Amino acid sequence: MSLLDRLSFNQITADPLSLDQVISGCVAHDIPYIAVWRHKLEGDAARAASMIRNAGLRVSSLCRGGWFSAPTPAERRERVADNRLAIQQAAELDAPVLVIVSGPANGQTLEDARTTVMDGLLEILPDAEKAGIVLGIEPLHPMYAAERSVVVTLRQANDIVDRLASPAAAVVVDAFHVWWDPEVIPQIERARGRIGGFHVSDWPVPLPGILMGRAMMGDGVIELRRLRQTLEANGYTGPIEVEIFNDEVWTTPAEDLLPLIKQRFLQHV
Amino acid sequence: MSLLDRLSFNQITADPLSLDQVISGCVAHDIPYIAVWRHKLEGDAARAASMIRNAGLRVSSLCRGGWFSAPTPAERRERVADNRLAIQQAAELDAPVLVIVSGPANGQTLEDARTTVMDGLLEILPDAEKAGIVLGIEPLHPMYAAERSVVVTLRQANDIVDRLASPAAAVVVDAFHVWWDPEVIPQIERARGRIGGFHVSDWPVPLPGILMGRAMMGDGVIELRRLRQTLEANGYTGPIEVEIFNDEVWTTPAEDLLPLIKQRFLQHV
Repeated sequence: MSLLDRLSFNQITADPLSLDQVISGCVAHDIPYIAVWRHKLEGDAARAASMIRNAGLRVSSLCRGGWFSAPTPAERRERVADNRLAIQQAAELDAPVLVIVSGPANGQTLEDARTTVMDGLLEILPDAEKAGIVLGIEPLHPMYAAERSVVVTLRQANDIVDRLASPAAAVVVDAFHVWWDPEVIPQIERARGRIGGFHVSDWPVPLPGILMGRAMMGDGVIELRRLRQTLEANGYTGPIEVEIFNDEVWTTPAEDLLPLIKQRFLQHV
Repeated sequence: MSLLDRLSFNQITADPLSLDQVISGCVAHDIPYIAVWRHKLEGDAARAASMIRNAGLRVSSLCRGGWFSAPTPAERRERVADNRLAIQQAAELDAPVLVIVSGPANGQTLEDARTTVMDGLLEILPDAEKAGIVLGIEPLHPMYAAERSVVVTLRQANDIVDRLASPAAAVVVDAFHVWWDPEVIPQIERARGRIGGFHVSDWPVPLPGILMGRAMMGDGVIELRRLRQTLEANGYTGPIEVEIFNDEVWTTPAEDLLPLIKQRFLQHV
């Protein structure tokens, strides 16, 4: 099996493109997997699922559920309902994993927000179990703690998965978010058997921006191959998503971008 | 004792000002401590020390030593020599603590760079012990891992202090760098008896920039009072440095900035 058989194109890497365009690009360039974002479904997961299936592609994950914390109980209930919808959509898409981005504190204290996240996950877990979808707990880089995710380390994600104690719970390892962590290797080892995904991009020096500053693999300092090999040594041989938030990447035509991704993927991951 | 008796003005909060100007400001506004940066000494720590002493101020810390890793052994030796000079300067200034910013990987792998940091600290530790200076290991926020510090969590700083096993080693807790960490409270508890400093600023939402994006206390989401009270409960009653990297703060005249700092310090720390 070639490493390219595990390559997944995460839609956010080409956010300006429609799902149709991304599917055509993956087919043209022999990329077997696609990671789907919900804002690209335009409310019609069934249509997206049939397009993807007809093209012979598989879905590596659906992004994203989570975002549990909110200032009021009513809003928190809405978030839970939206996560239930996301689980249904993942099932329609044959996505094995729903990526969970916990969301920011959003008016709560950090500690309370973390409790809200745990409560929300416990509430949707039976739905995920019933649908056969894995909730993929993705810690985000701590620089997003205030705006996107109160779950910020692999240790914390492992703790959450411990508490969920279900085959429908796993961690998702995104290299950009966890590479800096002195515990990244032991926490991947700890996650053995419950690793739900691996995302790659790179950390350029200097980092040009907080959200859109990610780089193409090889244009930064992350030891991607070491992470991949550690994940494999701990049983993860599933799809590897290329997920790059970067304006320059977004404006690269697909016919140039996809060959470059394949080349860098083989060289650096 | 009032909390204001613990207030220290970190020079970087007014980087455009000279040491003379900062001293005058602190005296005029009854701020008892100053944290000195080495690039402000202009190579003459004795002169700075006498200016500070004559003004009736005390030095809370000297910033900074560290920055150990480098591509070649010769450069690494230079870094160690520079740290020895910094320890001497701290002693001249009656600074109890030399703040250690470890430095980036700088051409090494992360793991090797972390070993280089440990080796460098072990090498300068006897000098610090002899001079009566505490090496204050300051973890920086993980968003600086590639450019400024391979030491990124309080757990890691505590591990380093464990290995140094000396009264001349302590951790420095900077709220901006550690607030996001799910382990911040237990790791402060673990550091009891070897806490070398506490720095405050705030994390604004959204964060406007990576280096210069810090905010005045109260203009962000950090639970500063909780951190201060946790530090006190664990025995730290020393100076609290206000350290804000922010262009707007830098251009605020001292006669406006210092009263604002005192007010926000009392309200939020």
